[in-house]
Amino acid sequence: MADKTFPLNAWYAAAWSHEIEHALAARKICGKDLVLYRTEAGEVAALENACWHRLLPLSLGWLKGDNVVCGYHGLEFNANGRCTHMTAQKTINPSAAVQSYPVIERHRLVWVWPGDPAQADPAKMPDFHWNDGTEYVGEGGTYYSLQCDYRLIVDNLMDLTHETYVHAGSIGDENITETPFDVTHTDRTATVTRWMKGIEPPPFWKKNLGKPGLVDRWQIINFQAPSTICGDVGVAPVGTGAPEGDRSQGVHGCFLAAITPETETSCHYFWNFVRTFKTDDEDLTRAINKAHVNPEGTGLYDQDAFVLQEQQKVIDNNPRMPFYNLNIDAGALWARRLIDRMISDESANLAPLPGEAAE
Amino acid sequence: MADKTFPLNAWYAAAWSHEIEHALAARKICGKDLVLYRTEAGEVAALENACWHRLLPLSLGWLKGDNVVCGYHGLEFNANGRCTHMTAQKTINPSAAVQSYPVIERHRLVWVWPGDPAQADPAKMPDFHWNDGTEYVGEGGTYYSLQCDYRLIVDNLMDLTHETYVHAGSIGDENITETPFDVTHTDRTATVTRWMKGIEPPPFWKKNLGKPGLVDRWQIINFQAPSTICGDVGVAPVGTGAPEGDRSQGVHGCFLAAITPETETSCHYFWNFVRTFKTDDEDLTRAINKAHVNPEGTGLYDQDAFVLQEQQKVIDNNPRMPFYNLNIDAGALWARRLIDRMISDESANLAPLPGEAAE
Amino acid sequence: MADKTFPLNAWYAAAWSHEIEHALAARKICGKDLVLYRTEAGEVAALENACWHRLLPLSLGWLKGDNVVCGYHGLEFNANGRCTHMTAQKTINPSAAVQSYPVIERHRLVWVWPGDPAQADPAKMPDFHWNDGTEYVGEGGTYYSLQCDYRLIVDNLMDLTHETYVHAGSIGDENITETPFDVTHTDRTATVTRWMKGIEPPPFWKKNLGKPGLVDRWQIINFQAPSTICGDVGVAPVGTGAPEGDRSQGVHGCFLAAITPETETSCHYFWNFVRTFKTDDEDLTRAINKAHVNPEGTGLYDQDAFVLQEQQKVIDNNPRMPFYNLNIDAGALWARRLIDRMISDESANLAPLPGEAAE
Repeated sequence: MADKTFPLNAWYAAAWSHEIEHALAARKICGKDLVLYRTEAGEVAALENACWHRLLPLSLGWLKGDNVVCGYHGLEFNANGRCTHMTAQKTINPSAAVQSYPVIERHRLVWVWPGDPAQADPAKMPDFHWNDGTEYVGEGGTYYSLQCDYRLIVDNLMDLTHETYVHAGSIGDENITETPFDVTHTDRTATVTRWMKGIEPPPFWKKNLGKPGLVDRWQIINFQAPSTICGDVGVAPVGTGAPEGDRSQGVHGCFLAAITPETETSCHYFWNFVRTFKTDDEDLTRAINKAHVNPEGTGLYDQDAFVLQEQQKVIDNNPRMPFYNLNIDAGALWARRLIDRMISDESANLAPLPGEAAE
Repeated sequence: MADKTFPLNAWYAAAWSHEIEHALAARKICGKDLVLYRTEAGEVAALENACWHRLLPLSLGWLKGDNVVCGYHGLEFNANGRCTHMTAQKTINPSAAVQSYPVIERHRLVWVWPGDPAQADPAKMPDFHWNDGTEYVGEGGTYYSLQCDYRLIVDNLMDLTHETYVHAGSIGDENITETPFDVTHTDRTATVTRWMKGIEPPPFWKKNLGKPGLVDRWQIINFQAPSTICGDVGVAPVGTGAPEGDRSQGVHGCFLAAITPETETSCHYFWNFVRTFKTDDEDLTRAINKAHVNPEGTGLYDQDAFVLQEQQKVIDNNPRMPFYNLNIDAGALWARRLIDRMISDESANLAPLPGEAAE
Repeated sequence: MADKTFPLNAWYAAAWSHEIEHALAARKICGKDLVLYRTEAGEVAALENACWHRLLPLSLGWLKGDNVVCGYHGLEFNANGRCTHMTAQKTINPSAAVQSYPVIERHRLVWVWPGDPAQADPAKMPDFHWNDGTEYVGEGGTYYSLQCDYRLIVDNLMDLTHETYVHAGSIGDENITETPFDVTHTDRTATVTRWMKGIEPPPFWKKNLGKPGLVDRWQIINFQAPSTICGDVGVAPVGTGAPEGDRSQGVHGCFLAAITPETETSCHYFWNFVRTFKTDDEDLTRAINKAHVNPEGTGLYDQDAFVLQEQQKVIDNNPRMPFYNLNIDAGALWARRLIDRMISDESANLAPLPGEAAE
């Protein structure tokens, strides 16, 4: 396990677009305190949340046009972080500035690059188009704060056998653990594919498929390093060709996860469940959301959160205790390798991935 | 003072027998997280409370027969800690196991050995027969969690002059501070003996003796390293031979303490007050218990707990501030020496006890 | 920035006189736990708040005449810290003592010297005569606990331009930021002087001056190292000679601050606002106090406390992030230099102040 737990040179979801208005909002991303706001022209600015002068969080100040005014001595900073006003003096120290962070707003999320701004390449944005509200429908906007290393969520989502145990009584299903799966990868992605053919559909899918009989069920979980996941899940009547590519008789959706380290041991979890069926049924949208997270803490993600946070406590109390791996961890292990490689790249100690060693 | 505060190679009370049923119970002993449960055959198992795979506390899972099922991915471990089921795979890694701890159930308590299992010699069990419900009667079952180094309780019980100050108004008595005492020791025990001859009996003893006149009162506190104490206390009418060994005209009981480090600065305190008089009087049993610990926090042990926890706070804030000793500490000092010797033995740096140095 | 944040060889306000009665009171000063009490003759004693024997805070015991009795084993210590009674033994270890700290009671405050007692020179007492209830009137007795480095309060009071931002809507005033100021210093003091001539008086001063027209307004902030501040503030009708020294037509008061480190990141703030006008108006006294600190947290000092404590959190989270300075910080910088010099003096590494280097 690498000592560092996350790369800095990456795009991370920092907020839902609708969270950021023409007002100051504080959020910690990868250990860095940021203040976020939308300019009058609608662009999102992300600045270091500590005044250059005496470190008061800028989020405790206010906006004056597109400038942030520090609430302690009135210094002003523009959306690039440059100081534009120093109280009681006419000459402004030209080096006076707070760090500004590259921002891209895409797919209904605000993404920031907490690392070296010079390397902030838009081409490195993860694909999250399922979330953009066009082809797929989901409420979105659901933010979840967890007191655990973000990688524990990656592990969790890359291995759905946990559903049988953590979600026993709802989506847990013996078919998941009994069915083998494939793992593939590229230099930025890892994908776990599981086809459960000719099985009884679980209740949620049976109801939404609306057809009797056995189904082919799939779970295709795609990870994009360092921490974006799209889980393509669905069912189709057995024999209608879904495994071969014809999903026209089936129903499916995607669970979406943009996970962002807050600190080494806490994270922001921007999640959504989107679907292509019954897209006008807002009650269904709300019901799906409530099944994931709800005030009673009985949602699927609430169950995961409990487990992940308890896991983190053991890690904190036993920092040298190793993780051992099972066959079911193959997907998570590839995800971890890709993360570790990004971290190594930043340290300029690029280690070859397994299988890539030159002979 | 030794850097380590407790030996690991020792039997420690981990729970009252009645606490451990056919269900998972978490408890931290000497810094180690344990899960305890009783098998269907009635044996007590004690396992490391972190799954071999991903460290989730096993106590968050459930029992399947005598096996513990991890609540995250369903791995199963038997009562010896051996993994007997790995989800979605037929071959089990033969090294997959969690640590299992030696257990002895005796004298109505479950004792575990948190150190090297190979050295877990039943002959090293402390004698705690006063607690077994035969000769002596007491409710037992009373567990007390304290935020202090367990040795502070040892100090407290080995020097009862504190009663005059901490318990002023109840059992505190000037006779205790005014009467000299003897300390004897073996390589595993230290004993403080105080005889207060021809004194007015304190109220509790006067009432339970039920005879007029002066008494001989005794306090014989026996410590067994590392942390078991039996305090033999009682009174007999003066001149009836108690100091010489004939207690037939008197009444007496024992305060029992099995103290177990939870961490360096917290402990479990399994206590009981047992007696040989009025053994059928359940109201008296309840009254004695309530006089020691009660919800109002006014019991004798509540008063001690307050002092000990405040003492611990000062130690935490002033890690190098020394303890200085008075004559009254002679018993506690012997107990500390025996503890330190056990710790040294574990480090294979056996230092001779004072008086044992070869010339 | 020096590693140590405060000198120990200095007089620090530990309590208001009226707080210390013939009873035990605990307070931490410069990281040292003290127990304070007034003897029967009315002198204030300040002792280390941990028994020589087993470290129980002496403040948990009780007074027996002028001696402190430890609540654990009854050891007694006199007002000089000397042990005068050891339980159950006739001979007292002559070295048994707790540290006693030099105390001076002056200007309605109890001052202690937490450093080397041999250097506790009364001549080094800060001048705080404005607080003594003779020439100036103020309620006093107001104690404020802040979770911040005491020097952040010094910074705050030495630069009143913050009023324009932190206290916008009450005393904040653009005149303050627009008017230049002078800084002077001695080897123990730094003084910031600002004259705002011919301005509209702010509401508080206008009302208490009771005369129409423009005023000359002054703010003369005097710092005495390490942490005592008197801010002489007032107004007089323009042209009546106040800048030249004739304040007879004006009104003025002083904000007084005796700030004492509790730890590196928390402090005690003994403050008062005293005045020479309307000295019989107790409603005005109460109103002024309430305008500074009130239960709703809307007072001027409540606003400062919020800012200073947020600033401290950023410092804690970013220990190496520097402070940069503006022109407005000239007074605070001198105060910091004087503090740093006191700290250096204690380390016997006296660095020359800027401008004092020998050529």
